[in-house]
Amino acid sequence: MQRALDIDRSRFADWYQAVVRDADMAETSPVRGAMVIKPWGYGVWEQIAQELNRRIEATGHENCYFPMFIPLSFIAKEAEHVEGFAKEMAVVTHHRLKNIDGKLQPDPEAKLEEPLVVRPTSETIIGDAFARWIRSHRDLPLLINQWANVVRWEMRPRLFLRTTEFLWQEGHTAHASEAEAIEETKKMLEVYRGFAEDYLAMPVIAGEKPENERFPGAVNTYSIEAMMQDGKALQAGTSHFLGTHFAEAQNIKFQDEAGALTFCNTTSWGVSTRLVGGVIMTHGDDDGLRLPPAIAPRQIVVVPMLRDKPEDAEVLRYCEDLVTTLSREQAFGQPLRAFLDIKKIKSAEKRWNWVRRGAPIIIEIGPRDAAAGHVSYIRRDILREGDKVKSVAKPKQEFLEGAVQLLAEIQAGLFAEAKARLDGNIKSGITDWKDVENYFAGNEDEFKGWLRISWSKPGGAELEEVDQKLKSLKLSIRVAPLDQPPKFSPCLFTGAAGVEEILIGRSY
Amino acid sequence: MQRALDIDRSRFADWYQAVVRDADMAETSPVRGAMVIKPWGYGVWEQIAQELNRRIEATGHENCYFPMFIPLSFIAKEAEHVEGFAKEMAVVTHHRLKNIDGKLQPDPEAKLEEPLVVRPTSETIIGDAFARWIRSHRDLPLLINQWANVVRWEMRPRLFLRTTEFLWQEGHTAHASEAEAIEETKKMLEVYRGFAEDYLAMPVIAGEKPENERFPGAVNTYSIEAMMQDGKALQAGTSHFLGTHFAEAQNIKFQDEAGALTFCNTTSWGVSTRLVGGVIMTHGDDDGLRLPPAIAPRQIVVVPMLRDKPEDAEVLRYCEDLVTTLSREQAFGQPLRAFLDIKKIKSAEKRWNWVRRGAPIIIEIGPRDAAAGHVSYIRRDILREGDKVKSVAKPKQEFLEGAVQLLAEIQAGLFAEAKARLDGNIKSGITDWKDVENYFAGNEDEFKGWLRISWSKPGGAELEEVDQKLKSLKLSIRVAPLDQPPKFSPCLFTGAAGVEEILIGRSY
Repeated sequence: MQRALDIDRSRFADWYQAVVRDADMAETSPVRGAMVIKPWGYGVWEQIAQELNRRIEATGHENCYFPMFIPLSFIAKEAEHVEGFAKEMAVVTHHRLKNIDGKLQPDPEAKLEEPLVVRPTSETIIGDAFARWIRSHRDLPLLINQWANVVRWEMRPRLFLRTTEFLWQEGHTAHASEAEAIEETKKMLEVYRGFAEDYLAMPVIAGEKPENERFPGAVNTYSIEAMMQDGKALQAGTSHFLGTHFAEAQNIKFQDEAGALTFCNTTSWGVSTRLVGGVIMTHGDDDGLRLPPAIAPRQIVVVPMLRDKPEDAEVLRYCEDLVTTLSREQAFGQPLRAFLDIKKIKSAEKRWNWVRRGAPIIIEIGPRDAAAGHVSYIRRDILREGDKVKSVAKPKQEFLEGAVQLLAEIQAGLFAEAKARLDGNIKSGITDWKDVENYFAGNEDEFKGWLRISWSKPGGAELEEVDQKLKSLKLSIRVAPLDQPPKFSPCLFTGAAGVEEILIGRSY
Repeated sequence: MQRALDIDRSRFADWYQAVVRDADMAETSPVRGAMVIKPWGYGVWEQIAQELNRRIEATGHENCYFPMFIPLSFIAKEAEHVEGFAKEMAVVTHHRLKNIDGKLQPDPEAKLEEPLVVRPTSETIIGDAFARWIRSHRDLPLLINQWANVVRWEMRPRLFLRTTEFLWQEGHTAHASEAEAIEETKKMLEVYRGFAEDYLAMPVIAGEKPENERFPGAVNTYSIEAMMQDGKALQAGTSHFLGTHFAEAQNIKFQDEAGALTFCNTTSWGVSTRLVGGVIMTHGDDDGLRLPPAIAPRQIVVVPMLRDKPEDAEVLRYCEDLVTTLSREQAFGQPLRAFLDIKKIKSAEKRWNWVRRGAPIIIEIGPRDAAAGHVSYIRRDILREGDKVKSVAKPKQEFLEGAVQLLAEIQAGLFAEAKARLDGNIKSGITDWKDVENYFAGNEDEFKGWLRISWSKPGGAELEEVDQKLKSLKLSIRVAPLDQPPKFSPCLFTGAAGVEEILIGRSY
């Protein structure tokens, strides 16, 4: 059988690279660890950003833009934050180049008095503004979001999943009370969950991270975790309750109704271009990418089968009419994105390009279709029947009337498929470390899924010991799901009374 | 008379700062030269970006994202480009911080082998990708755009107009022929002109820059120039024909239909957050900002006059209904942006906040309006009658039916006002340098407008002399307008035969 990719998912890491390359999503750049996001990959990110932005605005947040350079002294203010981020930042030390001895280099006379770091995240520079902006309880809550690029130096980069520079949104909020800030933290986690499931068709488990996996400086960190097709977890979005840690470090205070000066409680939350990697590893198949229609930059692609013959004109007219009619429809609350591919390459090549890129519906129109008033199309979600590509022909009117519904069906089908995988591969009932070892024994690349186990939620050195034990099997604690049972088995690690269930697994 | 600002336009530079501050657009940041763009200022930029993005896509360009770090060696490749940009770049030299002797500093062990510069513009890093992507004439034209932040070190920053970091879009294209690349350069200039005039209500003159004002590495640079209310020119967008300069420096070649390897012709073009400054200086008045409705983040603001009394509930319901009804309308091809201001501050304070921010229509609803079914509103474009703020009351239905038309009228009125200023302040007929000196004599802050003069288009040392002469009066050549007469007076500078008319004036 001929596949659109020259590799299948059994070699998952190589398959991922092949999909990113053959779907024309992104490529490595001459700058170590940074990527070039190509039109199709960037188009997916734009869809993600637009819809998530609508949801962030609908929950009362306003967009701003803050400087990407942060003075070194700002980073140094919050102690844990320094620990967590100091190791991976790009540092700007000069503001001019000079030709010295025939070689262009940083001008020694333009050395900055204080080095600047390129934001790895913006709590400190935004907190500085919050300290100026907030005076009274009437200024609260302050609900801000920013779409930006950030830099965290990566020694082992992977396209979309872990790159030195990436694109993201980061929300930053300040509140009068702890309860309100915690509510905000959880509300945005829920926004992320809903967005991932409804829009990316990527089912997730929302929960709280253990102490050792918290954002540097956070009181609590929550995340949504998705299961990739190799069974590994992808942390797909995080939401942090920061308590008064940053407010104290940066003097973010307000006068309450009684007139007393009090520290604000703050939160931050973000998702990044990593989501694009998550979509690929959730929905891709052995023919390449399959995009959920809601985020496909082009939802229905029309390929005219042209043969340099007189009837080409009629075929083109027919195709143009299809695209115009489809573009008037609304799908997922937005104008339907239909596209006519008139690039001057062979139509068979076009078909396979769109298959690899994961366009949800690919229409192929030849002279016979045009003459008969038919539409022949391929559904990317169920591409094949046996080994063969399955093409369906329908009267044009019937196809047009059902197009929006068909997109919704594809979206729902991709979600159901991924949801079955997630639900079917979280194993409960293991209470003994030996069984954990047995479960994860063997080839590390083999599909394993996650375990849901009970623990006593140890902290400090005891947690460190648990973490080391897990690391020996390349495992980590993903989250304690928000949804917890009324009672617990004894702790798998300590034997003490269980207080919580957690998910453990391998991860990106 | 009480104004919403404590300064008027007679002190234009201070007035500008006051508008930016009091309209809550942006503020300086602790990072020298960089700004914090606040929600209202960022909202205007979002409107600009969204509409311009639609126009850029409609002309066949696709968005991508390229790394913001550029290896030093890339910058060094195009000789003029180096000269033009080397003096103002942020240079990253380390990728880690370390606590040494109790002080956080760049880790000497994490010094980069090759320093990276933060993009001042992306010709070199995008050209590197073009050299990989382009093989055959079938890959051309390659039409790419990017929305990004860029850095050019500024010693004398001014909010929006000149900041170390700014946001922009940069288009980059490659073509098989010189003619096609020149056509693209001019097409995008025309996109900018249309956008500035239709959308920002900011009339401009489109034309070509003289040799000494070209983009470093360009064959021709075109720009649109707008006249601010102090008579100075603002370069509001540029479009460059780069010939094969960058293609030769970066080896961007294609195989033509005959099989021969040929260098591509490339272009680049961009506009930035500077446009927001242009909007302020074009439309602001002594009460603050006036926003053209097309780019106002909130086009119609509804202020309920609440008094902590039982009738408040009815007033609120009435206002909510107004906003809901207005939001169903379409204005300028997008859903109308109506907003209910329920912040807990006095309604008089709200009125003045929205006046300073320049919301096009401000509705104020008290219990009597609600009871009578009336809408009382202020038009921001014609705020006052004599000294008093002019509020108009209309039956609700009549107001609703005319709202979209009213927004269009305000948009057209702001454009007409600015257009009259531009057209009325370009003086022709001066043929002698003495008259230029006389014209621009006196206080430099006094409104002067521009001169349209004839010249022989000298180059090299002769042009340098002209430039110095102009600089002595703080003038510069803005553009040679695209629209030229059939014949010319003798050159004002050299006395030789005139070949072109140019605009000279003071500028930002």
